Amino acid sequence: METGLTEERIKFLERDFQRGFIQFCGIQVLKIESGIFKSTINIGDNHKTQDNFIHAGLIATMSDHTAGYCAYTLVPENKRILTIEFKINFLKPAYGSSLICESEIISRGKQIIVAQSTVFDIRDTQQKLVSKSTVTLMAIEAKKLEK
Amino acid sequence: METGLTEERIKFLERDFQRGFIQFCGIQVLKIESGIFKSTINIGDNHKTQDNFIHAGLIATMSDHTAGYCAYTLVPENKRILTIEFKINFLKPAYGSSLICESEIISRGKQIIVAQSTVFDIRDTQQKLVSKSTVTLMAIEAKKLEK
Amino acid sequence: METGLTEERIKFLERDFQRGFIQFCGIQVLKIESGIFKSTINIGDNHKTQDNFIHAGLIATMSDHTAGYCAYTLVPENKRILTIEFKINFLKPAYGSSLICESEIISRGKQIIVAQSTVFDIRDTQQKLVSKSTVTLMAIEAKKLEK
Amino acid sequence: METGLTEERIKFLERDFQRGFIQFCGIQVLKIESGIFKSTINIGDNHKTQDNFIHAGLIATMSDHTAGYCAYTLVPENKRILTIEFKINFLKPAYGSSLICESEIISRGKQIIVAQSTVFDIRDTQQKLVSKSTVTLMAIEAKKLEK
Repeated sequence: METGLTEERIKFLERDFQRGFIQFCGIQVLKIESGIFKSTINIGDNHKTQDNFIHAGLIATMSDHTAGYCAYTLVPENKRILTIEFKINFLKPAYGSSLICESEIISRGKQIIVAQSTVFDIRDTQQKLVSKSTVTLMAIEAKKLEK
Repeated sequence: METGLTEERIKFLERDFQRGFIQFCGIQVLKIESGIFKSTINIGDNHKTQDNFIHAGLIATMSDHTAGYCAYTLVPENKRILTIEFKINFLKPAYGSSLICESEIISRGKQIIVAQSTVFDIRDTQQKLVSKSTVTLMAIEAKKLEK
Repeated sequence: METGLTEERIKFLERDFQRGFIQFCGIQVLKIESGIFKSTINIGDNHKTQDNFIHAGLIATMSDHTAGYCAYTLVPENKRILTIEFKINFLKPAYGSSLICESEIISRGKQIIVAQSTVFDIRDTQQKLVSKSTVTLMAIEAKKLEK
Repeated sequence: METGLTEERIKFLERDFQRGFIQFCGIQVLKIESGIFKSTINIGDNHKTQDNFIHAGLIATMSDHTAGYCAYTLVPENKRILTIEFKINFLKPAYGSSLICESEIISRGKQIIVAQSTVFDIRDTQQKLVSKSTVTLMAIEAKKLEK
């Protein structure tokens, strides 16, 4: 594979991605390459708003987390990724049976990494763009993460 | 009560707030007044990141939803609130036993309403500011929400 | 021309773009098509920071204005475009002899239009990405703009 | 004075604020204290849009620059401040005879500083809120700023 990532690292990222809140929500890895990360989720009633759309908070969670792991594919193993801030535009109400999130890196500094996440709503065979976000991330040494 | 809201409307907003994804996450109403909305959540393992902090996506979800209901206290009953976009800064990693989110309105146009949400992390008796967000919302007629 | 715009409309947009603050700053039209707008500026000392970089405010001004006119290519002549909000990431310090800004539409609703602007710094024969922004715009009837 | 800043440092900040693009635009210092910065500008035709409002780009420039100097009041003299990103909401069209911008710090990390800027439009004796922005800044060593 020409991902620039070892098989072992890819397996680690896949496992690490799907824990805690992300596992609870049901967001899963779709694709991992160096500088690219895609995720997906099957939508159920637990993901909806009172008006039966997919909740903006779930879309934001997916966008942030996938962007973070996109940055995580680019840093050495002793680094962790923190979200400094993100901004998300909701372009259309989402109500499909699943979502796909695609993240890519638009700038890669020594510390500051900027990613964009795009979320698509999947209804039958259609795929509609529902959100775009910009995520500003920071790579820090894992040992500095202690509370 | 001098909230400008009827008891009935407050009960409706409280019930309506805690449905779908928000109920699933466990976010609860703390306070409802005209133009003010506060929510809270007790933190468990399902809300954490791989590094045991509270997930940014949960904080974003709480900030967006509470801002939306803050706007919802200001519009007639035939209106619904949509999030156009939001931007959130994560100011400190959160790892407390609960969160509190306070939303207020900073601008109220006929269609466009802008709110700010502030999230505090509660650890023992301490309350620390963990995020600030700005949420741009739109009031639209409920009947226009049909898919 | 297959721009979807009449020659007359293109001439109007070109003239209208370069007025007031934009003319004062020296920002000029580079390209106009339906849903695409590009602008440029030759950099002088009046555009710099105290540290001799190109000022973030100028880059933001260019990003906002070019996005606005990008949306303006898509609406009927009786409409005007207002910026609801924008968010801009500065990806690298800029210090070239000119800037180019390219705007495109990522979502086009009846009222809300979302554009992205990308700014490049031109140094000798090199072109470097210096900023990315997302601009949320609103199309309103010209007659509603009265003060 | 109890600003936590020496008279000499305040004079330096005042002089340094009003250079290059900021001097060209005519933005001036109104108040400097440790963690607080206010600026003002007298509005002329050069600051307007084609529709005779004050240009969003000028308001953004003022918000970014004042936030940057607000952070600058808090760091040692060998540091400089860079804008990583900002987000600004335009809450009302501005058309007064002057603007006032007030910036304050909402979070102060070792490297990352987050400020909020609020801009008011002054018409006769009235002061109206026209924009709110959040600015993410980074303190870096001056010597790292070389091109």
